[in-house]
This record gives sequence, structure tokens and C-alpha cells, in this order.
Amino acid sequence: MNGKKGSCVEINIPSSATTKSTKQQLEGGKKKSAGNGGDLFSCKAWIEKVWEFAKEDSNRVIFSFKVGLAVLLVSLLILFRAPYEVFGTNIIWSILTVAIMFEYTVGATFNRGFNRALGSLLAGILAIGVAQMALSSGRIAEPFIIGTSIFFIGAVTSFMKLWPSLVPYEYGFRVILFTFCLIIVSGYRMGNPLRTAMDRLYSIAIGGFVAVLVNVLVFPIWAGEQLHKELVRNFNSVADSLEECVKKYLEDDGLDHPEFSNTVMDEFPDEPAYKKCKATLNSSAKLESLANSAKWEPPHGRFRHFFYPWSEYVKVGAVLRYCAYEVMALHGVLHSEIQAPYNLRITFQSEIRDVTSQAAELVRCLGKDISSMKRSLRTCLLKRVHSSTERLQRTIDMHSYLLTTTYCDPPPPPDNNNSSKPVVLLPKLSSVLSNQLAELESKSLDKDSTPAVAVQGESYHEMMRKQSRRLHSWPSREVDAFAFEEEGGVDFLPRMRALESTAALSLATFTSLLIEFVVRLDHLVEAVDELSKMAKF
Amino acid sequence: MNGKKGSCVEINIPSSATTKSTKQQLEGGKKKSAGNGGDLFSCKAWIEKVWEFAKEDSNRVIFSFKVGLAVLLVSLLILFRAPYEVFGTNIIWSILTVAIMFEYTVGATFNRGFNRALGSLLAGILAIGVAQMALSSGRIAEPFIIGTSIFFIGAVTSFMKLWPSLVPYEYGFRVILFTFCLIIVSGYRMGNPLRTAMDRLYSIAIGGFVAVLVNVLVFPIWAGEQLHKELVRNFNSVADSLEECVKKYLEDDGLDHPEFSNTVMDEFPDEPAYKKCKATLNSSAKLESLANSAKWEPPHGRFRHFFYPWSEYVKVGAVLRYCAYEVMALHGVLHSEIQAPYNLRITFQSEIRDVTSQAAELVRCLGKDISSMKRSLRTCLLKRVHSSTERLQRTIDMHSYLLTTTYCDPPPPPDNNNSSKPVVLLPKLSSVLSNQLAELESKSLDKDSTPAVAVQGESYHEMMRKQSRRLHSWPSREVDAFAFEEEGGVDFLPRMRALESTAALSLATFTSLLIEFVVRLDHLVEAVDELSKMAKF
Repeated sequence: MNGKKGSCVEINIPSSATTKSTKQQLEGGKKKSAGNGGDLFSCKAWIEKVWEFAKEDSNRVIFSFKVGLAVLLVSLLILFRAPYEVFGTNIIWSILTVAIMFEYTVGATFNRGFNRALGSLLAGILAIGVAQMALSSGRIAEPFIIGTSIFFIGAVTSFMKLWPSLVPYEYGFRVILFTFCLIIVSGYRMGNPLRTAMDRLYSIAIGGFVAVLVNVLVFPIWAGEQLHKELVRNFNSVADSLEECVKKYLEDDGLDHPEFSNTVMDEFPDEPAYKKCKATLNSSAKLESLANSAKWEPPHGRFRHFFYPWSEYVKVGAVLRYCAYEVMALHGVLHSEIQAPYNLRITFQSEIRDVTSQAAELVRCLGKDISSMKRSLRTCLLKRVHSSTERLQRTIDMHSYLLTTTYCDPPPPPDNNNSSKPVVLLPKLSSVLSNQLAELESKSLDKDSTPAVAVQGESYHEMMRKQSRRLHSWPSREVDAFAFEEEGGVDFLPRMRALESTAALSLATFTSLLIEFVVRLDHLVEAVDELSKMAKF
Repeated sequence: MNGKKGSCVEINIPSSATTKSTKQQLEGGKKKSAGNGGDLFSCKAWIEKVWEFAKEDSNRVIFSFKVGLAVLLVSLLILFRAPYEVFGTNIIWSILTVAIMFEYTVGATFNRGFNRALGSLLAGILAIGVAQMALSSGRIAEPFIIGTSIFFIGAVTSFMKLWPSLVPYEYGFRVILFTFCLIIVSGYRMGNPLRTAMDRLYSIAIGGFVAVLVNVLVFPIWAGEQLHKELVRNFNSVADSLEECVKKYLEDDGLDHPEFSNTVMDEFPDEPAYKKCKATLNSSAKLESLANSAKWEPPHGRFRHFFYPWSEYVKVGAVLRYCAYEVMALHGVLHSEIQAPYNLRITFQSEIRDVTSQAAELVRCLGKDISSMKRSLRTCLLKRVHSSTERLQRTIDMHSYLLTTTYCDPPPPPDNNNSSKPVVLLPKLSSVLSNQLAELESKSLDKDSTPAVAVQGESYHEMMRKQSRRLHSWPSREVDAFAFEEEGGVDFLPRMRALESTAALSLATFTSLLIEFVVRLDHLVEAVDELSKMAKF
């Protein structure tokens, strides 16, 4: 339990933030020791870390300097005597505006500026209206009218910002609320609310102007460019994680896979691409907010025409996520507790590898097309994915007896008509397998109902036994005990058989999911085509 | 293309925001027409909608009134003469503080207050230090020192807030920046920075105090309570969507399923639970931020002990999401283009239904346990899920020939030993199926290589043909043309067969995924047990 132990909030969660919180803890520790003892080594490590962070994306440093520049510029208005005498003390509002308005990307700054400007304007108009009304109603009624209006505006803006479609304008409602209160209250105390409102609007406008100017003119960071890059990155991570997942599936590491429950919480540390793929699944909010910001940006850089279809990027991202769900499902089969034995898994390995590498190549190619904003001819790639998927289907079909051996006679040799493409190594392997299975069959029948414990290396049987044990240690101990009691260990054999069958079907599941991934790629190609049409690649 | 057409940002995206944006458009339209023409009907509809929204969660109204109350309270400090004479004009800062600090939940308000307080304090100390240094360095150097320090603070705080572990404190850094600038600049112009800083801190403290007091004492909305409810809701939506998905899979609607590409963008409008399940997948950020806020809250309501394990809720949510990924995969199979025919799908229907309803019941039961904060004995439920999953496995095993018919002889009758549980309707159905398949086999062999077009109702063959057509219209027209050209329609038959086999295996995929879901439930039970231990249910 690591709740609240000090003033520092420790988030210990298994999702994408885990790495962050670990970093945070590490960082915290590093910072402390560096601060306290002046430990040279950890101080150096800390500086290196910051340096790495800055180097990873130089925009971060640029952004920091831009903020510094913007606040410096507005401060000059006060530090120099001449402008200060023109604008007066109200000019400090422009500092507040810069500090609050300056965002990372140009689009977000425009968006926030819009919120701020419209909010201040509305609040100003409202405040002046109410103040005039209050003034004309006499000295006694005035504070009551002002108080009521403040309560009313507070309640209404707060309610409105909860409305789902208005949530993005949350900041605007806050601005309305505090600007209204400030103008009306200081108008009441200092008289002349119109003057107060105008002065404040001036200084806010100056602040906003400086913020926008610095943001656009000094090394602008465009939300559109970020969105573009993020989408391409997502394409690559889906391709990577597909390949990684299939590679791991076909790999015989000679070890039992670590328990799912152990790894599920560590986010599978040995699978870097999987993490990226999961990040892709959670990226919808990021893509949306970037697209939302990008819409505020004028044509720039490579995105030269007006009404550039930024929302189309979000759509492509959604279709890509649909593909990524299949990768997640593949990953689920990879780490499933009921697993096809290695011997069986590698039966179709060349076909599976073909499909995978070609599908991954297609995804990467689509990503590259978006990245370079060119339409390449994908016919050849599509054709290859298509035909290798078909080959996989056909091979599975021909050797489908492997997936359900228990009740089948050895298969007849495949039809001569369609033996044009099948792989050479298959017949041998499959015969080995079916021999093993026959052996297992006879053995377990001989031994009647006692669990077979015959040790013969890493045989199929042995593996099945392990997996069966795993499955049986499954829901929880109480139930397990009960189950064994009830069945008295009598029908262990059919159980074993059912398990074997399910285990073999797990390979079928894996290939089906892979095929489904390829099918979904079609939608992805369509979506990218649509995007390239609309964006006039 | 629906990019930027007016000042209103239209987000047209297929993810969870779609409903929102549709609502927004509707709302926008409604509001406009209500405002313009005074159209009575749409005005009434609009009021009804707002009423519904308020009734849906009464906390929304409570929150709005609380904000109104809080700003009213601080305004009174200025509206009444006595406090105004004590505090002076600086008191308007307390209004700003309330407007900015007041958040929906108690925890979030505490968190923001902490950011505000610590930020202001740090900025105050820094500003006083720099101002004293500048003062002592003489009249000429002073503005340079102040300008440099402003630039430096702006750059450093902006860089720090980009650091991943410091992102949650973004607001605190903004506060540091503008408070520092305000104090140092107005100190320069008005002299005595210490006085300015202290006055401002006073009024900020008053504002913060009022905000916290109102938030905690008037109908408090606890983040912990919200988190608790949200998690329970997630459990229910996973259970619902599992049942919905399986029900649809086993349903014969007599129609072709609509094209995936059409429905993928509409979010499957006829599947309300699926939408909720997807929301569950995207809820990680919400759970995290609620847990983050809840940590700031004192013991309250049902959560009476200190260090309540809020982070454990996030963990349970993560395990639940792992289960939900399987539901997504099941949903993927349901809408897959390669589909097992209806006849085959309903072969195992009673077993699949059993497993589903029991698994869903278990999930709901876990949700109820959390909701009522009691530990119920789940042994009986677990046992039932366990045994029905086993029955499903066994039935699939016994009838696995159905999944790979093409090369198998008709199956031997199932073993007498384990015929205790199988369903009565199965043998009949399977024989019907195998007859159909045999018929198809002979027919297509007779017709040699031309595609069989025999019309015999909604036969297996007919369905296969449709699906095959669908698959073949698949990558895109260019490739398709090429493929047919290359193969000259010669090996249509093996292709058909491979498709049939893959289609049948889709059922295997579905059941495997269902079984995997059940296996993952175990982790869920463990996680909930862990939570109930730590939270001392």
C-alpha cells in the first residue's frame, strides 16, 4: 500500500503511467540526494538525464525559451518608464495573460487566446450591463443586485462547463467568471466600471498579442506537424508490435513463460514494442486534442492549403486502433495460459512469418506515405499480403487435422491439384506430430485413469500436463479442491483430451486473428487513401 | 470534409467523442433556432434536455450552486465596507483564487489549492530574494537583474512542467511564473516588494480558504466516492457487453451483417453495451485522475480509515481492462468478414450461453461486492464458471471434426465414458451439418472448377459463397483483378475450401477467446480480493 506518505503524490499504477511514476520516484530520489549531500555522481547523472530529455525533443528547450522571452517582453512594458506611464498599473494583467495563455503549440495558444478573448469580452459586456443596472437602482439595492448577479454567473458558468460539448471551453467559462467578478466588484469600489473594463481589456489584449506573436514568429511549434508525426509513429509501433508478438510466438525459449499475473503488472518488460502499441491504443485523446489545436492554425510548412483535413487524421488513427486491437488479441493468445505446444506452433511458421512481415511492411509503407505526403503504389504490397494470407489459409486447411487430432484418422495426402504452393517441411513435421499424438493416445489409454507422468524430455505430453496443471490450479484453491473431490479424479482423461484440443485450437485462434488483422488492413488502406485524397498528397 | 467552417469547432471523429459532437451539433442547432426565432417547441426541448442532464447527476447542480456561493462569499469581503477597509484593493486576488481553484471534487480542490499555495509561496520567496538583490545592486543594474530573472524563471518553469513526472503540477508552475512576475514587477514600480507579496499571499489564502471551506462543508462531492462508483460501473459494462456480444453471435437475424467499414465508423449503433465497454477501455485516465484526487481527501463516508488504498482501485481497473480486451476481440470475431455459418455457430450454443451468463454473473457479483464493500463467498459462482467452461472445452473437443470437416471422415460416436453431460440436440445437428458438407463436397467436385451457383435457400454453401465474394472483393479492385487474371479462375475450388475451413475456425477462435476471458477472470477475482483485504471490507 503506497498511499499518501508525504506531500509527494505517489502514483503506483500498472497502466502507462507506471513508467512515469517509477521515473518520478527515481528522479525524486536523485534530486534529493543531489540536493542534500551534493553527491557529485548523482548530480552528474541528474544533469545527464535532463540533457537527454532536452535532446530527445529540442522543441522542449525552444518552448521554454519562448515563454521566457514572452514574459520578458511584457515585463518591459512596466520596467521601462514610457509605456508604464501610458498604460498604468493595469498593465500587470498582460503578464497574467501571457503566463496563462502561452501553450506548447501554436494552435493551442490560438485556441486558449480565443477562449480568453471571448470570455473577457462577454464578461465585460455582462459586467457593464449589470453595473449600470445596479447603479441606476439606487445606493441600497446596488450591493444586492451585484451579489445576486455574482452568484448567478458563478452557478451558470459552472453548470455550462460540465455540459459535454462545452467541456473543451472550460477555460473560457473560468475567464468569464473571474473577469466578471473583478470588473463588477472593482467597479463598485472604484467607480466607473466602464473605465475598469476597458483598461483591463486593453492590457489583456496586449498580453495576448505578445503571446501569439512570440509563439508564431519564434520557432513556431505547430500542432499540425506534431499530429502528423504522432500518427506516423503510431503506424510504426503497430507494425513493430505485430512483428514482435509473432516472433515471440514462434520462438522456443526453452522456458516456461512467466506467469501472466506476474507480467501483466510489469507491462511485459521484455516487449518494448508492445508498450508502444498500448500507447497507440491510448493515444486517441492526444490525437484529438492535437487535431483540435491544428484546426486553429493557419496554413504552414508542408500543410499549405486552407481547411486541411486534420479531422481525417483522427479517423485514420481510429482505424489504426482497430487494427491494433487485433494485435492486442494476438498478444493475449501469446500470453494465454492455454497454449499450443511449440512443435505445433512452428508447423505453419513460414506462412505465418510471411504474412506477418508483409503485413508489417504494408503498415510501415502506409506510415511512410503519410510521412512523406506522397501516394505510392501499394498494389504490389497488397498483392503479396493477399496471396500469402491465402497461402496460410490453404495450408491450415490442408493440415487442419493437426488442430483436432484426437478423433481423426491420419489425413489422406493432400489433393494433387492444389499442391502447387505448399511448404516442403510440413509433411515430415506433421507426421512426427501425429506419431507423438498417437503415442500419447495409446499411453494414456493404457494407464487408464491415473495421470500419466511419463518423462520423455520436453514432449508434447509433458507440456500438456504442465499446462493442464496450470489450468487446474486456476480459479482458486477452494474450488479446485471441490472439483477434484466431486470428480474423484475419475474422468481425468477426457479432461486432458479437452485441454489438448483447446490448446491446439489456440494456434487456430492465433492464425485467425492474424488473418483478421490483414482483413482490417484493407480498411486502413482505404482510410489512408481517403486522407491522401482530401489532403491532396 | 468537415473541418473548420465557422468559429465553432466541429469534431467529427469516430471515437467516444462522436456522440458528444453529434450532441454538440444538435445542441448548437437547437440553441440557435431557440435564440433566433423563439421557436417554442425547440426551446422546450432544449429546457427538457438541460433538465435531463441535471437530473442525471444531481451533483452537477450542487456543484454549480457551490461555485456561486463561494464567489459570492469572497465578493462580500469587498461589497461590505468593514472588511474592504481592512484588506484593501488586493482582496480582489481572492476572487481570482476562488474562480481558479474551485474544482468539482474535494480532492481535486485540495490538490489545486496545494499547487496554488506552494506555487505562490515559492514565487513569493524567490521574488523577494531577487528584488532585494536587485535593490542593493543600484538603480542602473536593477531593471537588468529583474528582466533577466523573469526570463530565467519563465524558461525554467516551462521546461520543468514538460518533465513527465511533473506534468500533474503544471498549474503550480504557471502560478509560480505569474506570481513571481507580478510581485517583482509591481514591487519595482510601487516599491516595497515584501509588502506587495504579503498582501497578495493574504488575499490568496483567504480565497483558498473560502473555496476549500465551501467545497468541503456544503454537500461535498468526494473523488473517492466517484472513483468507487466508476469502477463498479465499469464492472457492469464489461459484463453487459460480454452478454450482448455473445447474444448477437448466436442470433440469426436472417440478414447479412452490415459491412464492417460502415459500422466501424458509426460505433455499432445497435450495440449500446459495446460502447460502454469501449468507454471502459478508455477510462484509465479518468480512474487515475480520480484516484489522484482521492488521495488528497480525508477519511469520509464509507471510507473511514486513513491511507485508504485508492491506488488499488486503479489496479483493479487495469485488470478489468485486460478482461475487456478479450471482449473487444470477441466483438472483432462477431463482426469479422470471415464468419462461421449460423448452423455451425449454434452447435455449441447452450455451452457458450452457459459460460457467458455465468462469467457475466461473476463479473457483476465482483462489482456488487465492491459496491457494497462486502466480501461475498464467490466459491459457488467460480465453481460453476469453471465447470461450464470445462464442459464447453469437452464439447468442442468431441465435435472438433465440425471445425475441420473437409478432410475428415464422419466422426466416430463419442466415448461412452464421458457422455454424461453433452447436450441432446448436438448429434442431430452435427449430422445435418456433415450431410450438408458432404453434399457441398460432391457438388463442387462434380462441377469441376466453375463456381457452384446452386441456389438452395440459405444453405451453408450459399453463405460460404457470399463470404467468399466478400473476402475476394477485399484488398482493392486493382489487386483483385490481378489475382483473378493470374489464377484464371482455375483454383477456385481449393480457395473455397480454405475459406470454409477458415470460416469454421472462426468459431474456434470465438470459443477460445471466451475461454481466455474466463481464465482472466481469475486474475480479476484475485485483484478484487487484494483490494478487499487492503480496504478491510
